Amino acid sequence: MIKGLLSVLLVLVAVSSSLGKPEKNIAKRGKRIPQTLSRGWGDQLIWAQTYEEGLYWARMQNKPLMVIFHLEDCPHSLAMKKSFAEDKDIQKVADEDLIVLNLVYETTDKHLSPDGQYVPRIIFVDPSMTVRADITGRYSNRMYAYEPSDIKLLLSNMDKAKKLLKTEL
Amino acid sequence: MIKGLLSVLLVLVAVSSSLGKPEKNIAKRGKRIPQTLSRGWGDQLIWAQTYEEGLYWARMQNKPLMVIFHLEDCPHSLAMKKSFAEDKDIQKVADEDLIVLNLVYETTDKHLSPDGQYVPRIIFVDPSMTVRADITGRYSNRMYAYEPSDIKLLLSNMDKAKKLLKTEL
Repeated sequence: MIKGLLSVLLVLVAVSSSLGKPEKNIAKRGKRIPQTLSRGWGDQLIWAQTYEEGLYWARMQNKPLMVIFHLEDCPHSLAMKKSFAEDKDIQKVADEDLIVLNLVYETTDKHLSPDGQYVPRIIFVDPSMTVRADITGRYSNRMYAYEPSDIKLLLSNMDKAKKLLKTEL
Repeated sequence: MIKGLLSVLLVLVAVSSSLGKPEKNIAKRGKRIPQTLSRGWGDQLIWAQTYEEGLYWARMQNKPLMVIFHLEDCPHSLAMKKSFAEDKDIQKVADEDLIVLNLVYETTDKHLSPDGQYVPRIIFVDPSMTVRADITGRYSNRMYAYEPSDIKLLLSNMDKAKKLLKTEL
């Protein structure tokens, strides 16, 4: 038998320390509502399931990938989600011009946490597969965090991400 | 600006060559049905979204992780999905004793494709984070493939996965 020891122990430690109450602890019995990929961030958007899928679509469609890290029981995440889902301009740009992915678990790619793992955190990735560390919010200690009052800044950052890196070269 | 070139190019090539028609090409307009994580493999099960999440739950709950690779437009995948979703014993064991994940994209972890990337393919991972390459179906050329007629073998393999490696040591 081949034993393939997986090299994500460090990440698991990081993830477990950054997580709140596990969703799995909710009632195991009774009729469940099927889980959605949107998780309330826009049921009408087409969400990538995984980072690998998001990168695939970003390259195939030559669109930037927007990765939203959040947690279901984090009040800042919930407030940002509400603003994001209700803003028609945000939803339109997300639908037409971006590949979108929302995650409640960290990935193994450290490029997605340039200044640490926290939520909510929004990272753009160019279709050239370059993390856009230059597209930031307004908080110097958590550069990729946004609050509901930053929704216009987020929209402008989404537009900024649309100016692909290769057209700048 | 930090440019973090992501190291998944090879995987993307592999994925793109193994995929059928992209789901993204379906109607961009009109009311969409929110995508589910179950994708028809059991709406009542609690599905992990990503491999990282699945591993986290496997360790936390000391349960094996079952990873199902499939494609929405593959007739073999669809036939297996139907059998899987309709089999009460399969659904019960999956719900109570396993962490479940279904993916339509390959991950970057080559341990999950011991004999290649194909669908449908079912891989078990022990909570010790060891891929159970010893738990196979009946086809020597595609060792982790199952057909609807193999559903009892799959159930017995799910039971086999429940005998955790560390208890054997």
